[in-house]
Amino acid sequence: MINAKAESHLGSASERRRFRAGEYDGVTSGLAPGHVQGNVVILPADWAGEFLRFCQANPKPCPLLACSDPGDAMLPTLGEDVDIRTDLPRYRVFRDGACVAEPTDIRELWADDLVTFVLGCSFSFEAALLADGLALRHIQENRNVAMYRTAIDCASAGRFRGKLVVSMRPLAPADAIRAIQITSRFPAAHGAPVHIGHPEMIGIADLERPDFGDPAGLRGGELPVFWACGVTPQVVLEQARPPIAITHKPGAMLITDLLSSRLAIL
Amino acid sequence: MINAKAESHLGSASERRRFRAGEYDGVTSGLAPGHVQGNVVILPADWAGEFLRFCQANPKPCPLLACSDPGDAMLPTLGEDVDIRTDLPRYRVFRDGACVAEPTDIRELWADDLVTFVLGCSFSFEAALLADGLALRHIQENRNVAMYRTAIDCASAGRFRGKLVVSMRPLAPADAIRAIQITSRFPAAHGAPVHIGHPEMIGIADLERPDFGDPAGLRGGELPVFWACGVTPQVVLEQARPPIAITHKPGAMLITDLLSSRLAIL
Repeated sequence: MINAKAESHLGSASERRRFRAGEYDGVTSGLAPGHVQGNVVILPADWAGEFLRFCQANPKPCPLLACSDPGDAMLPTLGEDVDIRTDLPRYRVFRDGACVAEPTDIRELWADDLVTFVLGCSFSFEAALLADGLALRHIQENRNVAMYRTAIDCASAGRFRGKLVVSMRPLAPADAIRAIQITSRFPAAHGAPVHIGHPEMIGIADLERPDFGDPAGLRGGELPVFWACGVTPQVVLEQARPPIAITHKPGAMLITDLLSSRLAIL
Repeated sequence: MINAKAESHLGSASERRRFRAGEYDGVTSGLAPGHVQGNVVILPADWAGEFLRFCQANPKPCPLLACSDPGDAMLPTLGEDVDIRTDLPRYRVFRDGACVAEPTDIRELWADDLVTFVLGCSFSFEAALLADGLALRHIQENRNVAMYRTAIDCASAGRFRGKLVVSMRPLAPADAIRAIQITSRFPAAHGAPVHIGHPEMIGIADLERPDFGDPAGLRGGELPVFWACGVTPQVVLEQARPPIAITHKPGAMLITDLLSSRLAIL
């Protein structure tokens, strides 16, 4: 369960050391509060240029926080001693678009041509919403956020193409307005919503049947508010079928030393 | 009709001189483009303190741009040589809460104890929405915006109390999100919406029967977006029944020398 609360009050570097030592392989929601967490995509160099262009063309689902040099496993702009081969709780390894393993480190898979991408994630903007006093149902109910494949085409880049995936949070109207204001400040964490109110307009037939995550339980008087989702690049990646790709296991994100509040542009 | 386009490309000071000379007594929408226009309320000094408190407590319907000294008809912070006794196209005079006259100047009514309040108006944020490429139906159709009395109580201040009045603009969902972002930058022109999507939650039974203005014609796939409205203080004023009050005639606003873009806080 992606949003299950983990019990820890360690800092970001301490959490990464714990993962590196194999002492924790679960979800990172709630760990190292106040620090930016990121989606991870690792690709061979001859696929990396196209993926970089895909991120540039689709900043709402793919807000790029960092991109490594080929073969360099360190991510110095995201924190001290961040080694992407060991510092995630758990990984997913894809071969030709199919998930073949979920290891806790990828030292044996590392190669000189691998490029790491780290993309912003909704944990950062959710923390800002919670700090402003808004209630988020999936967090209150300890469920995963509801996610849907839409009819909206991403901008394609080389072999990377596909539909936008969105997450949905049900909010009372005044809270929806406030959430738009707050998340607009966080373009590096998916930014403002892409839609509000009429799911059928973006190709979602049944809110109670999400494609990923758990049903959201929209109540009377609430509006469904939709944000671009970091699952988008994962779906696009599976469709593009590179010979190898490595990602974080959903929910088990890279914890960086960056402060979430510093992602705010205003 | 409040939003009828007037034909003029004069500056703000030239427009005020035209009104002062009695050459124009119509609506000011579209005049002196780019300049802030304001709602005007003039009250005796022994009512002014309570009204000032009302504005302070209700900044969304009553964003205060300027407040004069008692008896001083000039508003130097709003422009050069602004004389509130002559510089509006047309006025409304209320005695004990009832409109008794609509003169084109108020020199004969002026008294040493009168205090002028100028409140921001939606023209400023509408200009920002139009400049961003959003279509506003009531402007396209040359109608007045739809306005509604809500069930939302304003904060009361002394003898001033009453329900919030809102204006409603129908917008496609993505445009509604953008409109929330843009109008959030203009707290001095009513700011962000107060509601979106569910009119019944704020006491509006039938969108096609506005209390003021023209029906808005909500279309399928659009959301009704509600902003606090400058009609609120006028309704509150009529209920409070001061012995005398003078306002602009709706639509015939004070044109100031301030640039609308300078009202943006970001």
